[in-house]
Amino acid sequence: MSTSTPVNRRILFARWPVGAPVPEDFKTVNEPLPTANLGQVLLRTLYLSLDPYMRGRMTPGPSYVEPMALGDTMCGQTVCRVLQSRDGNFTAGDLVVANSGWQDYAVADANQLTKLDAAMSHPSYALGVLGMPGFTAYVALLDIGQPKPNETVVVTAATGAVGTVVGQIAKMKGCRAVGIAGGAEKCAYAVETLGYDACVDHHAEDFPASLAKACPKGIDVYFEGVGGTVLEAALPLLNLHSRVPLVGCVAYYNLKSLPTGVDHIPALLRQMVVNRIKVQGFIFFDHYETRYADFARDMGIWVRDGKIKYREEVLDGLERAPDGLMGMLRGDNFGKLIVKVADG
Amino acid sequence: MSTSTPVNRRILFARWPVGAPVPEDFKTVNEPLPTANLGQVLLRTLYLSLDPYMRGRMTPGPSYVEPMALGDTMCGQTVCRVLQSRDGNFTAGDLVVANSGWQDYAVADANQLTKLDAAMSHPSYALGVLGMPGFTAYVALLDIGQPKPNETVVVTAATGAVGTVVGQIAKMKGCRAVGIAGGAEKCAYAVETLGYDACVDHHAEDFPASLAKACPKGIDVYFEGVGGTVLEAALPLLNLHSRVPLVGCVAYYNLKSLPTGVDHIPALLRQMVVNRIKVQGFIFFDHYETRYADFARDMGIWVRDGKIKYREEVLDGLERAPDGLMGMLRGDNFGKLIVKVADG
Repeated sequence: MSTSTPVNRRILFARWPVGAPVPEDFKTVNEPLPTANLGQVLLRTLYLSLDPYMRGRMTPGPSYVEPMALGDTMCGQTVCRVLQSRDGNFTAGDLVVANSGWQDYAVADANQLTKLDAAMSHPSYALGVLGMPGFTAYVALLDIGQPKPNETVVVTAATGAVGTVVGQIAKMKGCRAVGIAGGAEKCAYAVETLGYDACVDHHAEDFPASLAKACPKGIDVYFEGVGGTVLEAALPLLNLHSRVPLVGCVAYYNLKSLPTGVDHIPALLRQMVVNRIKVQGFIFFDHYETRYADFARDMGIWVRDGKIKYREEVLDGLERAPDGLMGMLRGDNFGKLIVKVADG
Repeated sequence: MSTSTPVNRRILFARWPVGAPVPEDFKTVNEPLPTANLGQVLLRTLYLSLDPYMRGRMTPGPSYVEPMALGDTMCGQTVCRVLQSRDGNFTAGDLVVANSGWQDYAVADANQLTKLDAAMSHPSYALGVLGMPGFTAYVALLDIGQPKPNETVVVTAATGAVGTVVGQIAKMKGCRAVGIAGGAEKCAYAVETLGYDACVDHHAEDFPASLAKACPKGIDVYFEGVGGTVLEAALPLLNLHSRVPLVGCVAYYNLKSLPTGVDHIPALLRQMVVNRIKVQGFIFFDHYETRYADFARDMGIWVRDGKIKYREEVLDGLERAPDGLMGMLRGDNFGKLIVKVADG
């Protein structure tokens, strides 16, 4: 293939991971550019979002979306530039959000795309604070969590794409916001930059005691995206009538089977009855119709006015996506993890 | 003590049980009758209700009510006749609901009593279908479960005081009602008398498969009062947007410590995220103010018109209360468990 012909690198789902994904679970192929048919557009990927849910799609069995098949392009939301349009609603140069996955170029049906302002200052924000993670934070906190002034809101993965937004909205609502994050650097950032009242390191030996100390009046809203030992530390602190928006459980995504040891379900259920606690699972796409307009209005203003601060960790180059996902599942990333695939 | 002087038998909480309660955890004492002061009444116990929550009050540590202290009269709701009143709102002969516990006689503050129709045909129903268990069934099913026509409602302890009512309300709401009960006799009663569409025996070896077969369209409302292996069988069947009113977890009440083996929390949380499930703890007394009038109106009509059928297991004599409670925690009772203390 001559160097002057554009090549589409695609990163494929090559093998079902057993436990944590490893490089051999991915495979890169180089192919000619795809061709857009009528009603389609040809896209150049600028930014690829890496998110914990991707691990779920690498797991066989029923979930809220079908798992990928071996040989599929790894899934993922992207911000792309339209190179060529065969649809009346798009023209070359348009900036769009697509679900085009881990590749340099893609062909997409026009009706699957969301157009962005082509002059948007941070297009990648459409994959984070102004996109799915921000929307998840906004709706799950406000609608399930229903935080009230002076309540204590505890946020897992407090500096991640979702948690960052949850903590700052909680502060705007007049709550005490307590973060949980991995490592001193993230905890310092949570307090100093994001405005959390406290942030507790779940790697520290005295983590459960530190969390209890940071929540002297217990927990009214526990924003759960992690599970495992983090949940076990929060559970005894959950107050009467507390609410637990449940947006994920990343601690379990790499499990090969249910862990042995102690069954914590009796402790969970007993606490839930005694304190009449509500735990509710949440996935963003159930709520677009009813809540997207509110979110877009509020979050647009908050980000513009600097009321919501936001951090990205940008990996440069599509080839870094597998390492990025593997690291995210270990908690390595600091802020919303984005792969920059091309200049826009 | 002469045989002509009335004696008050009190059954005391004598020892903290380790695991299942045993007879030595209770102690009976004979005492003179107590004396009513101004604002109080002297009561003769007619019926004593035995309920699973009593085990919780025999466990140290925080709960929604204080645990009992050693030496306390065993707690329990009762239907009593007023023998003597020193309060303007009551007169001798009145029938009341009290929280006077395991004893023949009691003195109670008048403002802690609820007056019943003195000519009520089944006074003990005020401890069951027309009382706390019926109210729990009504509010937890309707407000948390929100059953819709053609949905599948699965009811744990399907022939117990609460489950009996849940299943029959579910049928009135146009749902498929599937019970879970212990043993063939209870299962037959659930289907033949209470009108469940199916009832599955959780003692049977093929219980998980049988439950799945009884719920060909999955579970939309899982009314949970048990936990343990019953929950484990229901979990994979929980549908998209299903609701789980959680009114107890009797499988765990006698646990000495968290069980070892497999931790089922990852399976629970993953299913809850994937299918966006709501699990909410419930205790009746949060809801009296907002829902009692609705309940009293609806349930009064339903029982009067025979739309709600109801079964009691009546133990004759206060001295049978300890055995009754121990048996209930093993699932021995069949219907609402009542101790008849005296003729009324």
